[in-house]
Amino acid sequence: MSKKSSGAEIERLIALLARLPGLGHRSARKAALALIKRREDLLQPLAAALSEAAQKIIPCPSCGNIDTVSPCTICQDPRRDRSLIVVVEEIADLWALERAGVVNALYHVLGGHLSPLDGIGPEELNVVRLIERAVPPVKEVLLALNATVEGQSTAHYLTEQLHGHGVAVTRLAQGVPIGGELDYLDEGTLAAAIKSRRPL
Amino acid sequence: MSKKSSGAEIERLIALLARLPGLGHRSARKAALALIKRREDLLQPLAAALSEAAQKIIPCPSCGNIDTVSPCTICQDPRRDRSLIVVVEEIADLWALERAGVVNALYHVLGGHLSPLDGIGPEELNVVRLIERAVPPVKEVLLALNATVEGQSTAHYLTEQLHGHGVAVTRLAQGVPIGGELDYLDEGTLAAAIKSRRPL
Repeated sequence: MSKKSSGAEIERLIALLARLPGLGHRSARKAALALIKRREDLLQPLAAALSEAAQKIIPCPSCGNIDTVSPCTICQDPRRDRSLIVVVEEIADLWALERAGVVNALYHVLGGHLSPLDGIGPEELNVVRLIERAVPPVKEVLLALNATVEGQSTAHYLTEQLHGHGVAVTRLAQGVPIGGELDYLDEGTLAAAIKSRRPL
Repeated sequence: MSKKSSGAEIERLIALLARLPGLGHRSARKAALALIKRREDLLQPLAAALSEAAQKIIPCPSCGNIDTVSPCTICQDPRRDRSLIVVVEEIADLWALERAGVVNALYHVLGGHLSPLDGIGPEELNVVRLIERAVPPVKEVLLALNATVEGQSTAHYLTEQLHGHGVAVTRLAQGVPIGGELDYLDEGTLAAAIKSRRPL
């Protein structure tokens, strides 16, 4: 029905918007209408920003981050601690750490985690380049991977690969999140928090 | 922090995506990453679809729908019943009725509802054109407005305006929605359903 009543261009726009994570078909229709209603201040700027992104944004050959410069802004930043590489699964994780502003080091984006069932082995991830980077001045590789089964098995694999390279391999602490209520935490978190308990 | 660590182009893209209804800042970041990861099959096509929409999509001068042709496909469709105009608040409502495929008539999009507190009076809505259209062959104007206070007061206003124009003015039936459980319905719906009860 809707193909008949609105143009193919609108249908195509909705179908593409619906492929964005977080937008279902219904919200894609709302987004398309909002875009068309706000042609000057939203539709045209977004079209321009996407074209510019398609042309300019490139993956960093060193760390796997994305940027418009190569190597990326972080890899070029002289104020960063070059003795520490923080390994993350996805660029979104790098952004989360940067927003938190809790570490001022270099990064390495794996592009995912090992998942043999999905056919994702070490070759599918940005591993070789990580091993190459794990040389002086780098002294420590912090595996900031998700506290999931896949994240942790990826961490074990990387620990093995980095063994004997003369760098310390560390991981994030696990335990009760700040603000967390014990009543709502899962068994695994409680077990980790008790196992790694610290003197006051 | 993120301004420092990712390019201004990426930040700008995220900020624009975050202005779409249904996308918060977090989901806008996810969407931006998905777009950049899927450059060929999502980013470039979406950029092209938006540019095309910005150039081609225009409001229908007759009914207020949007399309790439003028008058819109529906207004031009010779198989539509031209004696009935279905008045809706928004284009999304028109799409909902078309998807349902329950009426094969012409439409009229008001572009909202009366809302004096927000400064939206009759002049802000597509009312004058509706009055102009309410002439033969049009015999009936169906006010398919939301069953909200604003929708219903807009319906009352339009009923007054259309009085004496020789067209029947109707509204959607109100009552228990199909599949609705009485236990979960509000008082207003139950009251309307009892008031408009029908013989079996």
